[in-house]
Amino acid sequence: MLEKMFYPASVAVIGASQEKGKVGRDVLNNLIEEFKGAIYPINPKATEIEGIKCYKSVLDVPGSIDLAVIVIPARFVAQAVKECGEKGIKNVIIISAGFKEVGVEGARLENEVKEVAKSYGIRIVGPNCLGVLNTYSGCNASFAKKMPPRGHMSIISQSGALGTAILDWSEKTDIGFANFVSFGNKADLNEIDFMQAWKDDKETNIILAYLESITDGQRFINVAREVSREKPIVIIKSGRTSAGARAASSHTGSLAGADAAYDSAFAQCGVIRAETMDEFFDLAGGFSNQPIPKGDRVCIVTNAGGPGIIATDACERYGLKIATLSTETVDKLKTTLPPAANFYNPVDVLGDAPARLYEFALNTVLADDGVDGVIVVATPQSMTDPVGIAEVIAKAKKTTDKPILPCFVGGVVMDEGVKVLRKYKLLNYNAPERAAYTMRMLTKYNSIRNRVFEKPRQFEVDKDTVRKVIDDARKAGISVLGLEALPVLEAYGIPTLKYRIVDSADKAVATAKEFGYPVVMKIVSPQIVHKSDVGGVRVGLDSDEAVLNAYNKMMRDVKVAVPHCQISGVLIQQMAVGGKEVILGVNRDPQFGPLIMFGLGGIYVEVLKDVQFRVAPLSEHDALGMIYGIKAHQLLEGVRGEKPADIEKLVEFLQRLSQLVTDFPEILELDINPVKVYEKGTGCLALDARMTIS
Amino acid sequence: MLEKMFYPASVAVIGASQEKGKVGRDVLNNLIEEFKGAIYPINPKATEIEGIKCYKSVLDVPGSIDLAVIVIPARFVAQAVKECGEKGIKNVIIISAGFKEVGVEGARLENEVKEVAKSYGIRIVGPNCLGVLNTYSGCNASFAKKMPPRGHMSIISQSGALGTAILDWSEKTDIGFANFVSFGNKADLNEIDFMQAWKDDKETNIILAYLESITDGQRFINVAREVSREKPIVIIKSGRTSAGARAASSHTGSLAGADAAYDSAFAQCGVIRAETMDEFFDLAGGFSNQPIPKGDRVCIVTNAGGPGIIATDACERYGLKIATLSTETVDKLKTTLPPAANFYNPVDVLGDAPARLYEFALNTVLADDGVDGVIVVATPQSMTDPVGIAEVIAKAKKTTDKPILPCFVGGVVMDEGVKVLRKYKLLNYNAPERAAYTMRMLTKYNSIRNRVFEKPRQFEVDKDTVRKVIDDARKAGISVLGLEALPVLEAYGIPTLKYRIVDSADKAVATAKEFGYPVVMKIVSPQIVHKSDVGGVRVGLDSDEAVLNAYNKMMRDVKVAVPHCQISGVLIQQMAVGGKEVILGVNRDPQFGPLIMFGLGGIYVEVLKDVQFRVAPLSEHDALGMIYGIKAHQLLEGVRGEKPADIEKLVEFLQRLSQLVTDFPEILELDINPVKVYEKGTGCLALDARMTIS
Repeated sequence: MLEKMFYPASVAVIGASQEKGKVGRDVLNNLIEEFKGAIYPINPKATEIEGIKCYKSVLDVPGSIDLAVIVIPARFVAQAVKECGEKGIKNVIIISAGFKEVGVEGARLENEVKEVAKSYGIRIVGPNCLGVLNTYSGCNASFAKKMPPRGHMSIISQSGALGTAILDWSEKTDIGFANFVSFGNKADLNEIDFMQAWKDDKETNIILAYLESITDGQRFINVAREVSREKPIVIIKSGRTSAGARAASSHTGSLAGADAAYDSAFAQCGVIRAETMDEFFDLAGGFSNQPIPKGDRVCIVTNAGGPGIIATDACERYGLKIATLSTETVDKLKTTLPPAANFYNPVDVLGDAPARLYEFALNTVLADDGVDGVIVVATPQSMTDPVGIAEVIAKAKKTTDKPILPCFVGGVVMDEGVKVLRKYKLLNYNAPERAAYTMRMLTKYNSIRNRVFEKPRQFEVDKDTVRKVIDDARKAGISVLGLEALPVLEAYGIPTLKYRIVDSADKAVATAKEFGYPVVMKIVSPQIVHKSDVGGVRVGLDSDEAVLNAYNKMMRDVKVAVPHCQISGVLIQQMAVGGKEVILGVNRDPQFGPLIMFGLGGIYVEVLKDVQFRVAPLSEHDALGMIYGIKAHQLLEGVRGEKPADIEKLVEFLQRLSQLVTDFPEILELDINPVKVYEKGTGCLALDARMTIS
Repeated sequence: MLEKMFYPASVAVIGASQEKGKVGRDVLNNLIEEFKGAIYPINPKATEIEGIKCYKSVLDVPGSIDLAVIVIPARFVAQAVKECGEKGIKNVIIISAGFKEVGVEGARLENEVKEVAKSYGIRIVGPNCLGVLNTYSGCNASFAKKMPPRGHMSIISQSGALGTAILDWSEKTDIGFANFVSFGNKADLNEIDFMQAWKDDKETNIILAYLESITDGQRFINVAREVSREKPIVIIKSGRTSAGARAASSHTGSLAGADAAYDSAFAQCGVIRAETMDEFFDLAGGFSNQPIPKGDRVCIVTNAGGPGIIATDACERYGLKIATLSTETVDKLKTTLPPAANFYNPVDVLGDAPARLYEFALNTVLADDGVDGVIVVATPQSMTDPVGIAEVIAKAKKTTDKPILPCFVGGVVMDEGVKVLRKYKLLNYNAPERAAYTMRMLTKYNSIRNRVFEKPRQFEVDKDTVRKVIDDARKAGISVLGLEALPVLEAYGIPTLKYRIVDSADKAVATAKEFGYPVVMKIVSPQIVHKSDVGGVRVGLDSDEAVLNAYNKMMRDVKVAVPHCQISGVLIQQMAVGGKEVILGVNRDPQFGPLIMFGLGGIYVEVLKDVQFRVAPLSEHDALGMIYGIKAHQLLEGVRGEKPADIEKLVEFLQRLSQLVTDFPEILELDINPVKVYEKGTGCLALDARMTIS
């Protein structure tokens, strides 16, 4: 899929210009530079450009064409795409601007182009983009200043400017590209298509993306989950905080904020989220040219104590293990390093160490089975040989499948070594923390690619009841349901507190008996809002007699307090005693769909905001991750002599809820608050709910 | 103070070597390079070096000497220092290694040197260090490779290697030095002395330090608090996590971890802690050459949307405000920027903007009173002129007292602009997050220098009682006190739960009456450990009769359960009802002394680790900061209809505790757990305590 977009045999440039400096000319020149296939400039007013024969239209070109690049004014693009369709061209890149991004008329033009493309089965990149390039086919179908170096990054950028910044960085560091796509308005092809296309691309070691939005959240998750097993996916997603002001009416919605869905979704599908541009570049270098380590035990080799301690701190902060070297390794180090050296991790070869001592130390620790990766720290002391140390690292890399991250700290002197590292396409991490971060993400990716994905469990449920509740509510013009939502939960196998409205003392007693004591009794009257104020609430009724007396007293009291009220009856409700209170909620994220929230009840959610989110559908792993992800999770496991809560049932509860909101997109929001989680083996119970339907 | 260490009129090099490449020769050559004062090489075997007359000893030098640099083997150093003393030299830098860092014999030599120096009133830097330099006096009394550029950083480095890395970075960026000190073993002068010395140094804009330890925590806090009003102090402190394994016996100690004291102390005295090397360098550049902003409202000027959004995200993440531009500013921007530009913050001048549009936009937003500082983002698009933009920034800086942070994102192309920035000693922040971080710290320093420091309140207390309790315990060989510690708290005005041991039913009733009902009764017997198991605990006794009955029943029950036990009587204790439980604790940090902890009782401390630390003595500001610093602080302010707790009394409670542990260093650890905080206006009460004395 999309093979011909990156490896075409022939390319047409529609709008190839005779005038130097025009985008249509830049694109042509970029192609001429390295592309070995056929190039067809299309320009009705020219006979040849740069010595290549021009055609009036793609329809006049004798041979077949794999890819067309369009660089003509927006209003002519639809016609050009039509001609591409007639010619049988299946891949089109529209660089031209003047579409959706400029307003209504542009959006109309863009839709027209989309319609035409669809009718011919043409796939489109753009419009309003920098273009596409592949360094191996030599096809630079973009107006980027020049072909970047070859390498193993494949990058998607939703911002052309950021794309140019990355290309400029690449030229400086020589961390090269396999593919580069700037997709502008995403009229057709989007980030998901390219991730999929590069999954099996043999030159791609890492898929990077700068994104401001995601087109289809659920598809993104499904595709990224598959792709991330083969290739690391690193995304920098902006618009993190500014969208935070979005109004949210539900409890869950207000806690979710703007970015919880992205964080959750990325984690669920194995995408690594770079939080900063530095992290983005550091991972680009790391995943391009370093092997994935088998574990997280790091050894540091340094020529100074201070930076060694800083590197150790940083590794620990990122959750890496400081490798314990074997006695054989320590003994071997002692044979050659000076007596004042440190033979334990961090291995300090001392300030006057020549490159050969670095080499000895590095090879010795690499041979230790207890070491999964090495960070080589070097500072510019009087005897330091940055060039020699860089060569040592490059040489060692050829003989090992463990990552070796260089961390040369300094400036002018160390840059001599950094230049040598560049020659070997090794990115230098100029601060120990950055090397540690990169190592951590390399090890994290090892877990990502090895993880087992269990499909979300499917329960037998009663969809018809839910359908009916929703339809009835819609007919009645009701969009927010309270206790009436409980049958929806029951239909999905989620146990709820029993309740019933009865209109006589006898029925009250019979119902209470059926539910089991104790029960709660509440007056039901359209005129009474604050039930407690008028004696309309009684809790803890624990016998037939108590229910009978309460019923009679309530009828009297209420009529005295609100003389002319209509009484529909009383609500008899099971009384939930004991257990831990938790809150479950669902909110619909505009990109990812149903976002499920979990937290402990009361102040844990309201004051401490100690909640976890995941995008539905939830696997068991996801549900467990939510429960153990809250800071106060120990309260469910049992502290201070309490018995553990029924976490197994809670996991099922979460998965059933996930199935419900996946099956019914009409459920916009759903707070189940509180849910009682009883002792292990005794289940959970939803006490109250609030559901908003579309 | 220490004036002559940095601005000497004459310097002797003891150990100046004839042999090139020796440290003693490097030091001499470094001095010759720029130092305009008298230089006296001291070498008994030479008559002249580099054309300068040599002397056998400082005692042979005819003129007076302000500073001596010693570069001879460790065993001869004491004698050399003695001669310095006789010559009247007051400042000595000992570069030689072979002292404390190599073991017992070295430590002995170091002590000898210290003794000699002390007897002559000589101040020493080192031994085992890189030396000292000042770029304005031209005195490079170090073996650093060359004199770094002039500038406004003054740096202290506990690691020579890190010092060389900073010097190397400085050469690359041209962010220059005023002073540089590598102090090695800190035999005499330490970080505190240099902070103090540079407080009024007119060339110093920022004091930076790399530290692995602090010599005298309490003095450090006092000095840093004063110095940080005049100069920003930025410290990178390593050894953050590795020391975490230190054993701790008290509750407070185990929660404190290794680094809480540093974090608390730095915050209390206005030191900015850099968490990474990147932050350290970024702040070095920022504080050296940028003015301190008056507020935290930032404007972003960019030539692209994507990086503008990333910069906005970063500013919000760091708690900066995105400035709202005035209508005048927006109108003015509209007069000149193209229609498709963004006239609101972030101001987007668009991808094809020439430098003059950057200039117009930058000057326009700088003139807005609602803007405190500007971040200028530039990416390498086809028309981008990095050199022009850099010149625009440099020019604008001359006309404003607001910081302008350049953020050129890219590589080769943008480096052309970075070179121009370097010419103006402006550090480029190559990632938007780094510019935002630096801006945040500039604004933070504005608060630091403007803060009001109130002296810790001093209460009238009864020291004698505390003295007596401690002495009695020591006499009795007791190091851990339980309820017996309560009188200590009472003596410092901290109300405690009343209790008394009585030996008859009558006395029990009288005591209960005196304390007020309800009360608790507990058996007191050396043979009975688990009091509840034998009927030895009764709570909630609420009348004379209840106390009487409980007393009689307890005597019977206990004797049945433990037939031959000796009964000393019963403990009658006030029963504390209502209120919120909090925990206060004190732990002694080896560097900073008494470290006070505060948290909410129960799971908040044990499970959620929601605690705050401060180093005593506590100001009211410190105490309030502890209370409002915990995540669950709203629980004390009153949530869900509860009344607010007596925070005023809690503040006093914390300050009284602070005074107690400051007055009595013998109190090693003290947990007061729980303390009941009652409704506003009704005070606090310590229920139990556990105190460890030395």
